[in-house]
Amino acid sequence: MQVTTVNSNDRTVMTTEEVTAFLDNDFPEASYHGKTYEVLEITTQGGKIRLFEHERHIRPGGTISGPAMMALADVTAYLVLMGNIGPVALAVTTNLNINFVRKPEPGDLIAEGEIIKLGRTLAVFDVRIRSANSDALVAQASVTYAIPKH
Amino acid sequence: MQVTTVNSNDRTVMTTEEVTAFLDNDFPEASYHGKTYEVLEITTQGGKIRLFEHERHIRPGGTISGPAMMALADVTAYLVLMGNIGPVALAVTTNLNINFVRKPEPGDLIAEGEIIKLGRTLAVFDVRIRSANSDALVAQASVTYAIPKH
Amino acid sequence: MQVTTVNSNDRTVMTTEEVTAFLDNDFPEASYHGKTYEVLEITTQGGKIRLFEHERHIRPGGTISGPAMMALADVTAYLVLMGNIGPVALAVTTNLNINFVRKPEPGDLIAEGEIIKLGRTLAVFDVRIRSANSDALVAQASVTYAIPKH
Amino acid sequence: MQVTTVNSNDRTVMTTEEVTAFLDNDFPEASYHGKTYEVLEITTQGGKIRLFEHERHIRPGGTISGPAMMALADVTAYLVLMGNIGPVALAVTTNLNINFVRKPEPGDLIAEGEIIKLGRTLAVFDVRIRSANSDALVAQASVTYAIPKH
Repeated sequence: MQVTTVNSNDRTVMTTEEVTAFLDNDFPEASYHGKTYEVLEITTQGGKIRLFEHERHIRPGGTISGPAMMALADVTAYLVLMGNIGPVALAVTTNLNINFVRKPEPGDLIAEGEIIKLGRTLAVFDVRIRSANSDALVAQASVTYAIPKH
Repeated sequence: MQVTTVNSNDRTVMTTEEVTAFLDNDFPEASYHGKTYEVLEITTQGGKIRLFEHERHIRPGGTISGPAMMALADVTAYLVLMGNIGPVALAVTTNLNINFVRKPEPGDLIAEGEIIKLGRTLAVFDVRIRSANSDALVAQASVTYAIPKH
Repeated sequence: MQVTTVNSNDRTVMTTEEVTAFLDNDFPEASYHGKTYEVLEITTQGGKIRLFEHERHIRPGGTISGPAMMALADVTAYLVLMGNIGPVALAVTTNLNINFVRKPEPGDLIAEGEIIKLGRTLAVFDVRIRSANSDALVAQASVTYAIPKH
Repeated sequence: MQVTTVNSNDRTVMTTEEVTAFLDNDFPEASYHGKTYEVLEITTQGGKIRLFEHERHIRPGGTISGPAMMALADVTAYLVLMGNIGPVALAVTTNLNINFVRKPEPGDLIAEGEIIKLGRTLAVFDVRIRSANSDALVAQASVTYAIPKH
């Protein structure tokens, strides 16, 4: 499947390290009970975020909760957006649609976010979630953010 | 808007009190840091669930996080389903679509779930979320659950 | 379920008759093969649109096609929007999510659109579709329109 | 982005030619006014379908209507499903979510469908729509089909 270049620049506005610092400093609730997310990669096309296994995300049977995956999809889209437009305050999710397609295995989850559209006022992302130790998809989400004037 | 009767019975399978006990006993992660949800009402048409204000749901500016609202929409659909088919293990969310339309005010949130379809294998719910002290909608979600053979 | 007043005015910007004329004159593809839609009602809270039974919407078994229902949901949201902000050119659908929950019976369909949010730049609608001769829902959709500066 | 192998077989159940014949014979409303769709490719991972430019899909300004794109997303998912499970009668769409991200250019559209999940009772597809003469996405859809026992 052909990749559409969304950004004519070959560099993101924030590096992976800068997005990590942004997450740690400006998004404290993301690490309310210890480190929750790790920014693995931010590019002009998307990004990759890890959700660390955590007791509070586990459902009976050892599987990871749906809300933990919805939060992961949302934060992945947000961090890809920040990386590509800079740390704009007040960008907000307007729509999130998620399909849960397989039970995740216990352990970390990896989300891959892809920029579908990066417009002036709206940005749309496709997010695919897999168990860290497996290629099989566990969820696919579409996330829309409204971008305030900046 | 006319209400469609989905259940020919005039009684739910579990009472509001039984759904409350189910939530407390079988869903411990819902009260991982103190009571999170309160079952206000379960009927044959839907149900009403309160999300208590909690520090970990607050975003900068005093607003409630999107993931907290997604979790509320999901648990509302789940509890309405349990109330109307009984505590079936392993019912799972297959799709959740949510529109965030206003910033919630600080304080509790109230979700009203409505049964759109209650089939043998799939159930669909409309969930409307409002601040406890306001009539204005903050989010609207559609949630689909797959029901295992029971 | 409590109705949220979205419009502080007690009158729509366009009457039901004016929306009908707008549909007929500015939206000719809607009647490409004879009258397709009828505007039954436009209010400050929403509106009601009929889809006439038409050979090209019928699927094997006498049921109405999914795409015909998606088009009905979209046009219902659009006409409710026009009725409440006036005939703004270039309002465009940005997201549509639809759940098909029952087979419609042969015959006309009626869509009821409800304004969930009517903002400056985005409007969100809930649309419920039923067979004209039945109370049972056949589909539920959420539709978002982007409103250009006007 | 890594491709997940969904089908352990290396061959589809129906060839591209067989899916074309199925479309022409069993889906007559798809060519109600002349040939509407062309099956370009069906694989174990997905498929590619062309929507021919047609007067009835054109909106003022020369752009292609949203409903025409929703129908294209739906039929793409359907034909990929048929190609991979055989011509099962009565598979029905249960959910479709679509983001419209750019105006298409006049001319044909190409939809690429990807199998996200192919289960026993539910199948989920990602569908990307582009103008035939451009790499830029115009829409992205997620489509869920319920598969009857077969």
